Amino acid sequence: MNDTILLAHGSGGKLSHDLVERKFLPLLANPLLDKLDDSAIFEANGRLAFTTDSYVVNPIFFPGGDIGRLAVCGTVNDLSMNGAKPLYLSLSVIIEEGLLIADLERIVRSIKAAADEAQVNIITGDTKIVNQGQADKLFITTSGIGIIPAGIDISGANAKAGDRVILSGTIGDHGIAIMSQREGLRFETFLESDCAPLNKLVAQIVEACPNTHCLRDPTRGGLATTLNEFAKQSNVGIVVEEDKIPVKKEVKAACELLGFDPIYVANEGKLVAIVESGDTNKVLAQMKKNCYGRDAAIIGEVTNDHTGRVIMKTKLGPSRIIDMLSGELLPRIC
Amino acid sequence: MNDTILLAHGSGGKLSHDLVERKFLPLLANPLLDKLDDSAIFEANGRLAFTTDSYVVNPIFFPGGDIGRLAVCGTVNDLSMNGAKPLYLSLSVIIEEGLLIADLERIVRSIKAAADEAQVNIITGDTKIVNQGQADKLFITTSGIGIIPAGIDISGANAKAGDRVILSGTIGDHGIAIMSQREGLRFETFLESDCAPLNKLVAQIVEACPNTHCLRDPTRGGLATTLNEFAKQSNVGIVVEEDKIPVKKEVKAACELLGFDPIYVANEGKLVAIVESGDTNKVLAQMKKNCYGRDAAIIGEVTNDHTGRVIMKTKLGPSRIIDMLSGELLPRIC
Repeated sequence: MNDTILLAHGSGGKLSHDLVERKFLPLLANPLLDKLDDSAIFEANGRLAFTTDSYVVNPIFFPGGDIGRLAVCGTVNDLSMNGAKPLYLSLSVIIEEGLLIADLERIVRSIKAAADEAQVNIITGDTKIVNQGQADKLFITTSGIGIIPAGIDISGANAKAGDRVILSGTIGDHGIAIMSQREGLRFETFLESDCAPLNKLVAQIVEACPNTHCLRDPTRGGLATTLNEFAKQSNVGIVVEEDKIPVKKEVKAACELLGFDPIYVANEGKLVAIVESGDTNKVLAQMKKNCYGRDAAIIGEVTNDHTGRVIMKTKLGPSRIIDMLSGELLPRIC
Repeated sequence: MNDTILLAHGSGGKLSHDLVERKFLPLLANPLLDKLDDSAIFEANGRLAFTTDSYVVNPIFFPGGDIGRLAVCGTVNDLSMNGAKPLYLSLSVIIEEGLLIADLERIVRSIKAAADEAQVNIITGDTKIVNQGQADKLFITTSGIGIIPAGIDISGANAKAGDRVILSGTIGDHGIAIMSQREGLRFETFLESDCAPLNKLVAQIVEACPNTHCLRDPTRGGLATTLNEFAKQSNVGIVVEEDKIPVKKEVKAACELLGFDPIYVANEGKLVAIVESGDTNKVLAQMKKNCYGRDAAIIGEVTNDHTGRVIMKTKLGPSRIIDMLSGELLPRIC
């Protein structure tokens, strides 16, 4: 086999079969995938969650992860944010002719490791090849199916006045890690993307508090956009306190240098939970037990005032309205 | 709103929300999609089929369809080939900065029309934007979920000696339509892609013959590759007769001109069914009632000889072994 991807690997014929059989199947093997029919078949009974995301992150390898880990974690997390237990993923890859097969292998290995960590199987997939210059190395689309335990109803529309807003950890790590890799910035400490599967953290939250109202992972658009989505979907106001929001000092420094506000910078391993005031402490205690939630903090509350809007109380000055991200902060961040 | 796609449309912030709310939701609206949570939620009980495919066809508009219709039909068809009734699709779009919003709208309208024809809903989605020159106009990934009726067991591994091979209609229409559009070839008759949702045709086949052994749509790699997949998965031989395979005269002419063999050219609205000899006539009669199966023909049979191989009896000369497609015939055909 050649050491780079050729157009013929996308033909649907012999080279396509070879690529799938040698580079994907041995690593991702499981009984559902191995059947190689047009669809994978499984049994399910109950309320299912279904989600999809495409990943176009640049560079494809970055501190703390790569496009493969990102694609698995992102879809696992989207399922988890409805309280679903992720079960199965699909994996569709668009590859630019000329990609090193060694790079593809490294990404497939990373996909496998992330899927193992999240305890999900990839059961169906597709590969397309485009000519050089018609894509950038590779793009991955993952879709996922999860099952929602009985009695769980988590939605961005469920926030109620009096609820508390909990953030699972520091913000901006992913965006700044990508940016620093891309621009060759150097920081005092080595900053990594927070890219991680949050399904076990969510299972712990939901076990502690089956009545969790909202969960969402603040990816593109950052914390500010997620809070605005909650405020609009639930028709409530949200007030957060700036000095309660955990930000790593190297992220803070990079943001100052680049003119960014960390509340708009993408995360890939964080979640925002909205729970009733009385549930706050038990949820927070549970989150702190998980390695992906040990820096969790209560950052604000839900109000009946200024519905549809998010207000941030600043440390020194007056409160300010926080809008969604309006322009483009960092293209191809995920 | 601007008349071309900007990088900021992929920010995850305000412009992203505007794009989704103005250009996708009004057309694709349904109660599951409209919730706009990270996943869509639905009830299911039974055996489900799950599939995914990315579409990178060039050009994005072609005679008989466009990339949107292709993305819906392709995933509907992959579900159908396991006998599943397609229920829900996801839609993930990677757009090159600079795409005309009018072109995007035309594609979303086409997605809607194809979904309506197939009676499926798009219930979750994603949009990513990449810089100019990092993709080619747009790439679409659709995943799908379908439900398999009780008692149905259709797989490429189920062919048995004595079974008959039925093809639903003429081959090569899609590949030659794309190629002629791309190369500016002109044929006597206006040739269109056969791009179509085959789920109703499959429902009719399965109703007539619940014991249907294999179904597959011969897309990339063409009829020859699909037959080889069956022979290998089922560990049987397959013999087909060249003069039984329906080919339009303009496809035949174009293939002669271009040096292609129609059995390797992609289809997007055809299927191959393998059924027991005694079921052949009732399946064929059912297929001919459907507009997408009116040219259906029995093209061969399954044998115990030369297992794993496909033999074609030619009109005049001797039989020849037909292998999978080995190189790349037409890049970016689907």
